[in-house]
Amino acid sequence: MANDLPFFDRLETARRERGSVLCVGIDPRLGTMPEEVTAGLDGDVEAVLTRFGTELLELAGPHAACFKPQIAFFEAHGLAGLRAFVAILKEARRRGLLIIGDAKRGDIGSTAAAYAQAFLEPGGDLEVDALTINPYLGADALQPFVDTAAQHGKGLYVLVRTSNPGGADLQELEVGDAGGQRVFQRVAGLVRALGAPHTSAETGLSCVGAVVGATTPAALDALRGEMPDTPFLVPGYGAQGGTAADVVPAYRADGSGAVVNASRSINYPKAEAGSWRAAVESAARAAREDLHGAITPA
Amino acid sequence: MANDLPFFDRLETARRERGSVLCVGIDPRLGTMPEEVTAGLDGDVEAVLTRFGTELLELAGPHAACFKPQIAFFEAHGLAGLRAFVAILKEARRRGLLIIGDAKRGDIGSTAAAYAQAFLEPGGDLEVDALTINPYLGADALQPFVDTAAQHGKGLYVLVRTSNPGGADLQELEVGDAGGQRVFQRVAGLVRALGAPHTSAETGLSCVGAVVGATTPAALDALRGEMPDTPFLVPGYGAQGGTAADVVPAYRADGSGAVVNASRSINYPKAEAGSWRAAVESAARAAREDLHGAITPA
Repeated sequence: MANDLPFFDRLETARRERGSVLCVGIDPRLGTMPEEVTAGLDGDVEAVLTRFGTELLELAGPHAACFKPQIAFFEAHGLAGLRAFVAILKEARRRGLLIIGDAKRGDIGSTAAAYAQAFLEPGGDLEVDALTINPYLGADALQPFVDTAAQHGKGLYVLVRTSNPGGADLQELEVGDAGGQRVFQRVAGLVRALGAPHTSAETGLSCVGAVVGATTPAALDALRGEMPDTPFLVPGYGAQGGTAADVVPAYRADGSGAVVNASRSINYPKAEAGSWRAAVESAARAAREDLHGAITPA
Repeated sequence: MANDLPFFDRLETARRERGSVLCVGIDPRLGTMPEEVTAGLDGDVEAVLTRFGTELLELAGPHAACFKPQIAFFEAHGLAGLRAFVAILKEARRRGLLIIGDAKRGDIGSTAAAYAQAFLEPGGDLEVDALTINPYLGADALQPFVDTAAQHGKGLYVLVRTSNPGGADLQELEVGDAGGQRVFQRVAGLVRALGAPHTSAETGLSCVGAVVGATTPAALDALRGEMPDTPFLVPGYGAQGGTAADVVPAYRADGSGAVVNASRSINYPKAEAGSWRAAVESAARAAREDLHGAITPA
């Protein structure tokens, strides 16, 4: 997978090669860290976080289309945590694994450009293959991310609709003059417009994706209709309650165009015979097969 | 200023003691870095960024109610930039200067709690006195920040209305069934409700503030009316075009309740006789006097 291909083309290749739409979250929590990870590290937070992430890359790598480290769980431990984040990114690159940086950044103008530089410019410590971003500041605040992503073959996922209860507070408000359109549908329109100039000839996917929670199959189906060329990142599968069948409407007709995230169920699986490593491998395999089995390409 | 008082009480004390509502941004940009800062550092990014921030604390400190480092400009330089960010925070604490971390973080549930831990728990590398956060994910995603802030005497500023052109894309949408109410007014309502249980007996200010851009005096006046107990952080003064008179409606009747940010005009002032240091001191003094002079407490 050459690095100069657009991210979403590389992700499609990974999906086909591994038969997997699974995105594995990397959410290190010291309070629930398995002993197999902490053993011998004497409470060294940087080493524990790095080993946790590296083990996940190793164990779940064959079953994952990509990984999604959540930077909040690293920032929570300050510079030591951030050094671990950087080490995990480096290890993922060494292994040829794709990384979505889950950072949900967002700001205006030159500040947005600085975040884009941080995460999307080649060679930086925090360089990832794709980044999650927040749309509250509007299209001109998203544009610097799009420009940088398009320039370097990176991907973006804009928060469109989330499945937490409070997601409805703003996202589901009906817009006054728009015949029942809701705020998240406006965001879907921005995502589509921003991505349209940057659509891959190979896959037909734009470089601006969307985070769309697995609320209901009907909601996912409607969003796929509104954003036909938009890559989706779907959280809410597994520990959060969505089933493999629930997320099927997120894919395009040929089964492409979406990855489905699972974090807790793979990071902290119920251990079989006391082995966290075996349980992670088994949980990742099961999630890949469960998700893949639900897709019946047209 | 004891650290166990609520942030917004400490900020009011700083405002009264210094006669200043000025918040000085710290936005290091390598492309426009003055030679007085880079001299002798041989291109060492961490050292340049640290010196830039430390000089601003030194030069503008007597004129500022608080400082607002923008973390994006540090993340842009990876771990070296983040080490500089941490060094500047440490220097600010040593000097007793208040810091608003401009990070605009936001995520759901335990992830939001991890961000709150990163920035608001005492003793962490990234600990600040107050943090900017993003409301797109709704009230339940803001709650962990509020809980942590209330516990540790920290402050929050939720993005409510921004003055960039794209700010209108979502923030100004009219909500269907609410008699002309707009999305940002819904956010204002969330801010007010989240902060209500955490109001200081001393100042009457809640621990949940709002970022409200200096769009028009009438708009600020309306927002002050909707959020009477909410501390405001007002960007858009100085280089971004707002005048001291424009932001007056952001204050409460006694002149309290808001700080006004200036970044570019103080970070990169037009140098007088070639001295950046003298120009920064002079620009900070002028901004303090300009803003203070426009306030006529009732």
